[in-house]
Amino acid sequence: MSVFAFELVARDGEARRGRMTTAHGTVETPAFMPVGTQGAVKAVTPRELVSCGAGIILGNTYHLYLRPGHELIRDLGGLHRFMGWSGPILTDSGGFQVFSMEGLRKLDEDGVSFRSHIDGSLHRLTPESSMEIQAALRSDVAMVLDQCPALPAAPGQLQEAVDRTTRWARRSRDAYRGPGAVFGIVQGGTDPALRERSAAEIVDLDFPGYAIGGVSVGEPPESIAEVARHTAAHLPAGRPRYLMGVGRPEDLVAAVASGIDLFDCVMPTRNARNGTLFTSEGRINIKREEFRADPRPLDPRCGCEACTGYSRAYLRHLFVSNEIMASRLNTIHNLTYYLGLMAAMRAAIAEGTFAALRERHRG
Amino acid sequence: MSVFAFELVARDGEARRGRMTTAHGTVETPAFMPVGTQGAVKAVTPRELVSCGAGIILGNTYHLYLRPGHELIRDLGGLHRFMGWSGPILTDSGGFQVFSMEGLRKLDEDGVSFRSHIDGSLHRLTPESSMEIQAALRSDVAMVLDQCPALPAAPGQLQEAVDRTTRWARRSRDAYRGPGAVFGIVQGGTDPALRERSAAEIVDLDFPGYAIGGVSVGEPPESIAEVARHTAAHLPAGRPRYLMGVGRPEDLVAAVASGIDLFDCVMPTRNARNGTLFTSEGRINIKREEFRADPRPLDPRCGCEACTGYSRAYLRHLFVSNEIMASRLNTIHNLTYYLGLMAAMRAAIAEGTFAALRERHRG
Repeated sequence: MSVFAFELVARDGEARRGRMTTAHGTVETPAFMPVGTQGAVKAVTPRELVSCGAGIILGNTYHLYLRPGHELIRDLGGLHRFMGWSGPILTDSGGFQVFSMEGLRKLDEDGVSFRSHIDGSLHRLTPESSMEIQAALRSDVAMVLDQCPALPAAPGQLQEAVDRTTRWARRSRDAYRGPGAVFGIVQGGTDPALRERSAAEIVDLDFPGYAIGGVSVGEPPESIAEVARHTAAHLPAGRPRYLMGVGRPEDLVAAVASGIDLFDCVMPTRNARNGTLFTSEGRINIKREEFRADPRPLDPRCGCEACTGYSRAYLRHLFVSNEIMASRLNTIHNLTYYLGLMAAMRAAIAEGTFAALRERHRG
Repeated sequence: MSVFAFELVARDGEARRGRMTTAHGTVETPAFMPVGTQGAVKAVTPRELVSCGAGIILGNTYHLYLRPGHELIRDLGGLHRFMGWSGPILTDSGGFQVFSMEGLRKLDEDGVSFRSHIDGSLHRLTPESSMEIQAALRSDVAMVLDQCPALPAAPGQLQEAVDRTTRWARRSRDAYRGPGAVFGIVQGGTDPALRERSAAEIVDLDFPGYAIGGVSVGEPPESIAEVARHTAAHLPAGRPRYLMGVGRPEDLVAAVASGIDLFDCVMPTRNARNGTLFTSEGRINIKREEFRADPRPLDPRCGCEACTGYSRAYLRHLFVSNEIMASRLNTIHNLTYYLGLMAAMRAAIAEGTFAALRERHRG
């Protein structure tokens, strides 16, 4: 039923240039997935996402399950049709959001009970229910429910999480009845031996793609690159590798250098709404006084709507005046920056010049 | 210096089909001006405004004076360039906002002192300073500073306001050194004799266009139509007539029937952000439970982005989830409705079928 496929088209060191095929089209990798938390990438339309260079987006199972509800989305033809995005969609399992709600959730071997952040109502998420929700959303890639402990965590806790993640991965895989592909998730914190064991167990379950979870949860940024590098080496070369929740531009470049193919992060979109913008000359905060009368484009090397149509002075004015247009234009710019960086990485890998690109983006 | 002109191209009863020429292009009248309070029509881009059918927009002198400041906008080439809108712009005088701030402003013959709603700082607006600010903004149509009393008002107060409005209109006219045309404003509340006297005095000052002010300030909706009808009859036929701050779709139709050519109102944009949407079948509030699973377009007769790309269920979801996309799509829809109504009125006047259109839009 699933038309999922992945092929590698070029390599440069450990960096990989690939092509991931889904029922909703092909994704050129390495790829960054803008996050559409509540059935919309905040402030931008599907058409604008395409203009920014997006080839795949991420949907949040936790949020869509609570509101508007996966049955409603199923009855309306699935998430693609509901939100007007015709390209591929990957959905997370909902676990990450639930596990983040310390004190509002209770974990057992079967699953996790939690209270809605919207109305306090009681809900339950299990490997089976997560897969059922993701199948109802009709996402192209569904993620297994994993257990993601916050770092730092005691070694015993990490090991428990790895064991449970393997058991839940099997249950998730066996329960899925949707139109997409299911990816497994490797846990293990920053412990190389645990990561290795988790990778072996998850790969043994034979998923069409693998994610590295449990990163970007409180550890130092150097650890992310190290975990990605170490874990990627234990994943099969012919399957896509997804580093969950990462990250800063320099983190993406370092991870691609380690052989990662897929990323998602709220950073470009959330930072945009907070006025932090990524430019070819570094990060700036548009609200700073220095931009008050600056007639120049935000980034003269960028071709996005914000940079070609408006001055820094105007973008600053929109931001300090709390105009919705600030969120719109800033989001378009930051996504254009992130997705442009991914396109540059893909080109560099194909041309065998990735090392030079990486030098320019050292963290 | 000003290239301002106005010609009538058709009449149907008192309704007029006209053409107003400015340095930034020609406006087909009757026209509705979306309100760009702080240098942006909230939630939409200039390109989208054009798609919605906007031919002219309104800028708020009070807001732009306080933030980012008219000198800054002047130094960056004027409001058109600052906000990326290349069509005509009309600016108000700033008086309406200042007079609305009961207790925060003090009026005398020379002008009005007030405190900023942003930081409480003390400012002063006079006929001369209002014209200076509007000249710095480089708007195509500048409005004289008038005195607009809240209704109900004592007859003595209304008369004083009419007298001062005439004196201030002369001072405004004489002080203006900008690139646009200056419109006079008729006051007089709901008193026909006062309106008549005010119209005579303002027309005597020979402005290229005339506004009817002091409406939509607390009086019943029937009064608006009555004041517009009565006052319009005392304005010269060859000059554009602008009914300030009006209104509901049915108010626009009634006023056009009385010979009004120009309108502005925050209603379509503000209502959009509150979820109240204008459709061919009446007003709806998109947050209502009845739309939860409704797969139909918001208005099947509308060709806007919201109606052609999304379901009512999705628009409701965006609104209840507080997504920025709700404000975007709802604003595009409501502006398309308002500007479509204006286009329909222009066509009906040209075809001599305005009476039939009016019947369909009785309040």
